[in-house]
Amino acid sequence: MNQSKKIPDVVIRRLPLYLRALEILDPELAPITSSEQIARMIGTSSGQVRKDLSCFGVFGKQGVGYNTISLCSELRRILQLDQEVRIGLIGAGNLGAALVRYHQKNKAHQPLEIVALFDVDERKVGKKVSDVQVFNITDLALKIKELDVKMMILAFPAVNVQEIVDICIENGVKSFLNFIPVQLKTPPGIKVQTSDVTLDLQSLAYYT
Amino acid sequence: MNQSKKIPDVVIRRLPLYLRALEILDPELAPITSSEQIARMIGTSSGQVRKDLSCFGVFGKQGVGYNTISLCSELRRILQLDQEVRIGLIGAGNLGAALVRYHQKNKAHQPLEIVALFDVDERKVGKKVSDVQVFNITDLALKIKELDVKMMILAFPAVNVQEIVDICIENGVKSFLNFIPVQLKTPPGIKVQTSDVTLDLQSLAYYT
Repeated sequence: MNQSKKIPDVVIRRLPLYLRALEILDPELAPITSSEQIARMIGTSSGQVRKDLSCFGVFGKQGVGYNTISLCSELRRILQLDQEVRIGLIGAGNLGAALVRYHQKNKAHQPLEIVALFDVDERKVGKKVSDVQVFNITDLALKIKELDVKMMILAFPAVNVQEIVDICIENGVKSFLNFIPVQLKTPPGIKVQTSDVTLDLQSLAYYT
Repeated sequence: MNQSKKIPDVVIRRLPLYLRALEILDPELAPITSSEQIARMIGTSSGQVRKDLSCFGVFGKQGVGYNTISLCSELRRILQLDQEVRIGLIGAGNLGAALVRYHQKNKAHQPLEIVALFDVDERKVGKKVSDVQVFNITDLALKIKELDVKMMILAFPAVNVQEIVDICIENGVKSFLNFIPVQLKTPPGIKVQTSDVTLDLQSLAYYT
């Protein structure tokens, strides 16, 4: 768990966008960048960029800007992306398979590795999806520890969800990306981010 | 497009959560509800609930609360969920199929209907996924108009994305749920919500 606990989640959620913009810049052509440039690349305001970065004590030089390479490293360090993060995924159905393939294709050089899939369907166990092995859900606790899984993606039908989440937490999982429309009970220090397509569509209806 | 353009997106994104809480309450058992009860059900503060609802001129009675049925109807009206919203989905691959099945299973009685899938793969054209027909992407403009599609889900590989989005907008699509890691250029009045798993995982790494 990161030390700086008081940073709002919304700020943390914007950091990968800044990192993505910085990774697109060629440091040879743009050794120094500005909050204006980053803001323009991701469609926000320069004030927002400056304010967010200052939460971590990162300040550009007035009239000069930020060193592109240093800021990139600093953001990776803050996000703990300077080390490998080992991810598991429960549910090797359509959604699970799509997520693995999508991630393998788009992760680029991010040290985010999906190292294990889990499913209840014994016909899937032992097979691979994009080079990631499917394990039996009964081996969940064992494999989380063995493979040092710290993050879990939940993409299975909404059955026994809390029980499975509890096993994950007991064995060292610290954060969840949850695609199941179920409210999870988790102790302090565990982060859950829910991706709920129905809620997304409902809020988008406002704009139609 | 909704008239009240000044409401922040973050408020709009919370409304479906309030609606979901209200739909869980049985109005016979709980004809009157409170901001405290709604807040507890979705894990936020009662002040947040009151503040968000007051953006739309919806106020509970001091010491009494909100009428459960009225508030539910009011939220549906604000979100334009008091009428059918017709949705298209481009990309009938793993992700597209998972999204359709997920939505059919979880939409409950929401008037959000996925009415058409589109794909470039002619082997998929004419088939159905969960009762939704797959059309050829070359018929995109025609079918958007014919089926009155106002919202589009983008779940195809990142090729010709902007061109396809432009066709959607020209033919009446007002909002997008975008699963493609590409920044879209859209005119004012068009809403894009991006769901980017890689960004999600990167921000979750902070908490591991």
